[in-house]
Amino acid sequence: MTSEQSVVRSAVHAWKQNLERAGTLFSGLSEQQLQNDVAPGKNRLIYLWGHLIAVHDAMLPLLALGPRLHPELDDAFVKSPDRSVADLPSAADLRRRWDEVNGTLLNGLGAWTASDWAQQHTAVSKEDFAANPLRNRLSILLSRTSHVAYHLGQAMLAPK
Amino acid sequence: MTSEQSVVRSAVHAWKQNLERAGTLFSGLSEQQLQNDVAPGKNRLIYLWGHLIAVHDAMLPLLALGPRLHPELDDAFVKSPDRSVADLPSAADLRRRWDEVNGTLLNGLGAWTASDWAQQHTAVSKEDFAANPLRNRLSILLSRTSHVAYHLGQAMLAPK
Repeated sequence: MTSEQSVVRSAVHAWKQNLERAGTLFSGLSEQQLQNDVAPGKNRLIYLWGHLIAVHDAMLPLLALGPRLHPELDDAFVKSPDRSVADLPSAADLRRRWDEVNGTLLNGLGAWTASDWAQQHTAVSKEDFAANPLRNRLSILLSRTSHVAYHLGQAMLAPK
Repeated sequence: MTSEQSVVRSAVHAWKQNLERAGTLFSGLSEQQLQNDVAPGKNRLIYLWGHLIAVHDAMLPLLALGPRLHPELDDAFVKSPDRSVADLPSAADLRRRWDEVNGTLLNGLGAWTASDWAQQHTAVSKEDFAANPLRNRLSILLSRTSHVAYHLGQAMLAPK
């Protein structure tokens, strides 16, 4: 394995590890447990889970892997705060979408080389990318990895 | 900038971004605010801050950057749960150590190439590293980046 491969695979591995930890936690919760707040007056577990799915879904076009699969999740889980939308997907629906979205991402990016990762993501202009080459695809993966970890830390605090 | 440089710098940038967010949050808290729990019955902010400093301090030998600066922090912030050690450092002490430890790390690793990052970290044997080359230095940085994000998410929940 070259250094370049080692570095790139380490980043994908870190992403997968965080996904696995979050997937295990959220998929193991009942409908009722998903209604628990992570802390009094803070987001519910169901909101964090839907939020992560929506944010990961939005990575597909950002990484030029295709159109979004579930843009409809944004209304309840990105554009609105928790408890402002009454009708949320069931736990079974969320579990299916979590697997579908993260599986589609991993199929797309799993074999990328350093050269693929260093390309600009789709939300940055050529000029801005020239000025700041760190606005690349890998930075999207790394910031979304931190984002999962951030909310996973919160979800771990919720009463069992 | 080569792809290799772009990828490596993106990882260091993600680390720095999380450090900055955490540093801004914790350094802005008074002694009294640091005594707040992140959620009822959970860790106090002071414990999370000291824990992060101790874990980052332990990265110095792991990344072959030299001996630890503050191994004495482990007793209160790694080996013991919160509230089991009465005598904790002051906010001013923690702020100084946070800057010192993270500054020393960044001085050491800031200019590393992909080849530097792909080397084995010091806690893995040659045999284990040969079997799994992702047990490299970059994986340490990435897992500690997720670790900061995880506890930052928790710290953000604490009452102001």
